[in-house]
Amino acid sequence: MRIAVLGTGMVGRAIAARAAELGHDVTVGTRDVAATRAGDWADWATAHTGVDLAAHADATADAELVVNATSGDGALPALTAAGEENLAGKVLLDIANPLDFSKGFPPTLSVLNDDSLGERIQRAFPRTRVVKALNTLTADLMTHPRQLADGDHTVFVSGDDAEAKKVVTELLTSFGHTDVIDLGDITTARGTEMLLPLWLRLYGGLGTALFNIKVVR
Amino acid sequence: MRIAVLGTGMVGRAIAARAAELGHDVTVGTRDVAATRAGDWADWATAHTGVDLAAHADATADAELVVNATSGDGALPALTAAGEENLAGKVLLDIANPLDFSKGFPPTLSVLNDDSLGERIQRAFPRTRVVKALNTLTADLMTHPRQLADGDHTVFVSGDDAEAKKVVTELLTSFGHTDVIDLGDITTARGTEMLLPLWLRLYGGLGTALFNIKVVR
Repeated sequence: MRIAVLGTGMVGRAIAARAAELGHDVTVGTRDVAATRAGDWADWATAHTGVDLAAHADATADAELVVNATSGDGALPALTAAGEENLAGKVLLDIANPLDFSKGFPPTLSVLNDDSLGERIQRAFPRTRVVKALNTLTADLMTHPRQLADGDHTVFVSGDDAEAKKVVTELLTSFGHTDVIDLGDITTARGTEMLLPLWLRLYGGLGTALFNIKVVR
Repeated sequence: MRIAVLGTGMVGRAIAARAAELGHDVTVGTRDVAATRAGDWADWATAHTGVDLAAHADATADAELVVNATSGDGALPALTAAGEENLAGKVLLDIANPLDFSKGFPPTLSVLNDDSLGERIQRAFPRTRVVKALNTLTADLMTHPRQLADGDHTVFVSGDDAEAKKVVTELLTSFGHTDVIDLGDITTARGTEMLLPLWLRLYGGLGTALFNIKVVR
């Protein structure tokens, strides 16, 4: 599958590397290709020769699946740069959390309670099939879940389009996830985004990001 | 231990019954004793003869541990009725969630992000040692956790007083909980209260309240 991963940070690189490893045709999207190449991208790219780099719009144009791996603040600008027309009809896996670090650590959320970043993206791009997922765990566990308790923990999908959730669930399963719970429509992204305050406190208390929640039932 | 359980609803009754079963001296506090007795309390009390009923202040006056098992809206009024002096120096196990049902189901939260109900209670009663706990699962699992996966799931404590958290943790352990994570000070109650939106969607999706999360690490 042709996958565009928007975002060159830890999450974007982890998803891009894993998807390429699994045989997908992956292009990472960035705001400024030259600036990204001038940073530490070169070293990473050398170790991941199967992954291309392009401007957001170019990465998205012929992608079948688009991944939003930007920071919360960067999500709407990156998707706008990717282009409404380029995104139309496509599955968008949205991993971003609307974290607000302006008051220090732990961050608060800039969207919550009766709205979510997932919903904002869906409203801004109504022709795109937004699926919120993987925003509840660290990048290394998003892509390699079996390293923790042999994958015996839970991830979630939220979205209005059942077929899009199926596509994302199959991708997660190919990463090694064994328990993918479909929470319902995109408004259920409020629940997973609002898990972040608990996640951040656990991260502080446990001293590692290599944990996840399991829904025991 | 002499325990006052403020609140006559499902949570209050479950905690009162379990604590009495474990040999504690339990009094349930209510706003209006006569009104409570005129409701369905009589049937419940017949089946739980070891549990007394009293006005909030009378229940709290000689208690060693006080449990806030009111609804979120009812918490501060009930604790005010219990009396600042009666609560001074005592451990208060706060189970309430600040749910706002005014816009229907699922409810939103009336306090969140940079505050929590647990913190509000601690600020209103600075001499009381508030511990937020058990607000992340259904009443029947608060008190009988072993019925689900033999207790292999997680509950949390948040509070500023280490000794108070120890008292609560021992009570939870006596109920059958095997994994009690100390998240830190009372501000960490934001994390567990903000888990409710996810809990409510899981409740809807799974069709049962008999589930809990486990922190896999």
